[in-house]
Amino acid sequence: MPRPTELPAWQQLHSHRQTLDAWRADAALAADPSRRERLTVEAGPLTADCAHHRISGDTLQLLAELADQAGVQTRFARMLRGDPVNLTEGRSALHTALRSDTPLVVGGTDLRANIAAGQQAEREFAAAVRSGDWRGASGASIRHVINLGIGGSDLGPALALDALAASADGPIARCVSDLDPRALAAALGDCEPASTLFIVCSKTFGTLETLANAQRARNWLLDGGIPPAQVQRHFVAVTANPQRAREWGVAGEQCFAFGDWVGGRYSLWSAVGLVLQIACGSAVVAALHRGAHAIDTHFADTPIERNLPALMGLLGIWYRNFWGAQAHAVLPYAWPLRRLPDYLQQLEMESLGKRTDLDGHPVTWDTGGVLFGAAGSHAQHAFLQLLHQGTALIPADIIVFDDTAALEPALNANAHAQARVLCTGGQVAAAPAPHGDLPGNQPSTVIRAERLDAESLGALLACYEHKVFTQACVWHINAFDQWGVELGKQVAQSILRGEPG
Amino acid sequence: MPRPTELPAWQQLHSHRQTLDAWRADAALAADPSRRERLTVEAGPLTADCAHHRISGDTLQLLAELADQAGVQTRFARMLRGDPVNLTEGRSALHTALRSDTPLVVGGTDLRANIAAGQQAEREFAAAVRSGDWRGASGASIRHVINLGIGGSDLGPALALDALAASADGPIARCVSDLDPRALAAALGDCEPASTLFIVCSKTFGTLETLANAQRARNWLLDGGIPPAQVQRHFVAVTANPQRAREWGVAGEQCFAFGDWVGGRYSLWSAVGLVLQIACGSAVVAALHRGAHAIDTHFADTPIERNLPALMGLLGIWYRNFWGAQAHAVLPYAWPLRRLPDYLQQLEMESLGKRTDLDGHPVTWDTGGVLFGAAGSHAQHAFLQLLHQGTALIPADIIVFDDTAALEPALNANAHAQARVLCTGGQVAAAPAPHGDLPGNQPSTVIRAERLDAESLGALLACYEHKVFTQACVWHINAFDQWGVELGKQVAQSILRGEPG
Repeated sequence: MPRPTELPAWQQLHSHRQTLDAWRADAALAADPSRRERLTVEAGPLTADCAHHRISGDTLQLLAELADQAGVQTRFARMLRGDPVNLTEGRSALHTALRSDTPLVVGGTDLRANIAAGQQAEREFAAAVRSGDWRGASGASIRHVINLGIGGSDLGPALALDALAASADGPIARCVSDLDPRALAAALGDCEPASTLFIVCSKTFGTLETLANAQRARNWLLDGGIPPAQVQRHFVAVTANPQRAREWGVAGEQCFAFGDWVGGRYSLWSAVGLVLQIACGSAVVAALHRGAHAIDTHFADTPIERNLPALMGLLGIWYRNFWGAQAHAVLPYAWPLRRLPDYLQQLEMESLGKRTDLDGHPVTWDTGGVLFGAAGSHAQHAFLQLLHQGTALIPADIIVFDDTAALEPALNANAHAQARVLCTGGQVAAAPAPHGDLPGNQPSTVIRAERLDAESLGALLACYEHKVFTQACVWHINAFDQWGVELGKQVAQSILRGEPG
Repeated sequence: MPRPTELPAWQQLHSHRQTLDAWRADAALAADPSRRERLTVEAGPLTADCAHHRISGDTLQLLAELADQAGVQTRFARMLRGDPVNLTEGRSALHTALRSDTPLVVGGTDLRANIAAGQQAEREFAAAVRSGDWRGASGASIRHVINLGIGGSDLGPALALDALAASADGPIARCVSDLDPRALAAALGDCEPASTLFIVCSKTFGTLETLANAQRARNWLLDGGIPPAQVQRHFVAVTANPQRAREWGVAGEQCFAFGDWVGGRYSLWSAVGLVLQIACGSAVVAALHRGAHAIDTHFADTPIERNLPALMGLLGIWYRNFWGAQAHAVLPYAWPLRRLPDYLQQLEMESLGKRTDLDGHPVTWDTGGVLFGAAGSHAQHAFLQLLHQGTALIPADIIVFDDTAALEPALNANAHAQARVLCTGGQVAAAPAPHGDLPGNQPSTVIRAERLDAESLGALLACYEHKVFTQACVWHINAFDQWGVELGKQVAQSILRGEPG
């Protein structure tokens, strides 16, 4: 595939961008009553209103051509069938297969059968813990489940446990990631060793932070009276390296494996979701997968102009490469989704923070920016001032749910008010002019679902995954590696050994 | 004061910047053994290593001249004495007076005496709640204190309660901010109405989100059997508008006031800190104030070259206006400080997200950028990839504590490793070249304190406050208003009333 700057649509977008300096979305909305309807896109349980963006009819067409010229959907088809799209590690990226029933054979291996067997084992184990059939060393049933993981082995479970707390009917589940021992100590405050199960979640089973916490957990169990010979009853492992988990001391039948073709930040769909399954049950996990799969199908099959993940990716490119934006805000107007920006921060920044293209050349175009955000009502009182009256262009995703508005109508009223004011601007009457002037023309997407549930959460996460895929295709980079974080780990070890810098 | 672009140093910095395209901090460190010592600055309990920044000797001198030409310390002296530096609201900004014993008379009012009286009342009330002398309606002592506030009435208490959790020896304290009713419901899960005290914390006592939660709290108390005539025993107010708090139903002697000269995001030092005082006692609050006051004195008196808050502000300007940076990362390597980025996000983005200068002209230079971050060990596994191998320049503050390293040495080893690798770059051996290349020359400041305690927390927060003050001075904007957030509130009301958009 060519470099983006060589694609005809990229060059046309540059010329086109020059014509839009004085263009305003609010004027376009006023001039064209069909604009909002035309720019509202449906994808699975999600509906997204893109009318507030700095896009004229020509923009959308050129962006769609850019996606076609970069081969976004062709390359997604290759990803789905297991091609080694993670070129620098020589691996496929098959998180989509974890949420699909479609038969899949890769390199002679029946992956679907393997996945199904693993999922069956996870379901059975989770059900046994939930029912109380699976017990700790002393025969007590499990009341607390603590997931020990970091990065992709933590953010997905932590997000889903919060988002779907209303569905939690099993043991109390918590996630601990930080190397600071106070994090684990706080999580164990009201736990009893006899009724606590730890899930050690690490793709390599070599993650410093996670193994440190696992060792502390073992000490806590031993100090709490669990006999050494039975302490393994309180550990399960979720890993792509079960051999190493067994060496650490997890019983073979308590190791839940996933393939090296699942990237950490794409791993909620794998056995990494085990803690969610124990807390909420298998129907919730199935709904999460169903929602994501609906978006996989949508992304694969829908023309780019109506393809939500593709549009999200293309809009990001539009602002990053043609308007100089370096950051993007995510604002869920639902408290259970307050960790969504943290999750997406890893997904986007680790996937797209790259400066070498797929051909091994340094990029000469900007790639990923900063993703940040917070629950919307908090954001209004913390940092939205800068979006309204600052000098940086920061597009925002505003996420609303009908069922949340039913709990408190002012939540969605505020969400829509922010989207409107970001677009139209206006004057604050009480302020001394011109300090109350808001310029408007700040882009946002309002993403809506009927319910905040497992299905809409799955759909939302898959949308951002494929947004990232779209951007990586156009930017001609590998979204599935993260070599940049390796050097710091090595240097930290050398500092610990007291070697000079 | 002149616009920044008219300051001689600003123009000289532009020329100087052109000479640094190939300049590298790691080369400067290697060439000059005294660089690190020379660029290490002490301020109260804090020590900051600025050697990894893109600053030659000339840079520092020009930045110091910029601060002098913008009158940073002269204007700070005016702020300290109560001049109406918040010009658009005609108010002073006297959060510094809340942590000082210096006599202060403003407009004929003995502010110091007023402040001391208010602080005495807060101490007495907190002590009474802590001792059990102050009781709920049914005579039960208070076991849970819930702070209801949002923005500046939430972020400071929430940060301090987490950061200083090791000092908490009073009732269990929690903060609830979100308009979503599930936030309050979650916080009340294990509370009993008879032993729960609510602090309604709102500068105007008109904040939608906070009053909605206060009303829900009242309903919960009534539903929980507290007689209507006695429900006020479970509410105190912290506000600059006690009249309105009394109208809502808070007893006059349970209203703790602060002046309109305290901005929300500068209000932790006021009665907004009451929940912290109840949880941790007055010695902790006094230490917090002592740490901040040490930095106030440092900022007022220290030459710019050794003045930590001024340098933090100037470095931010250097990257924002001369290198095009739009974001800044904050990485505390201490789990109790994990909310620090949230707190600083409001402080910086709400203060500096402005586009109209003090003379009422549109700025033609960039002002505030995005502040984001997370606990360091989490950040390494989430988004630092983008700082190591992305295309955007993102300076970072890396914050370490000696006492935290004593708990887990690998924490600070990782912190220093990140600072070093960001600076030097290098090659990841396992990666196929050149995908493992890290370019380095990414700036960071390592801020260190011996202990994570109230004093160092107070110092840290005051440093960022005066960093913001420095930037606002140079950018010629008002750091103390936030008009941009008002319009959304009005539009939300009109949407709730069903008015057309």
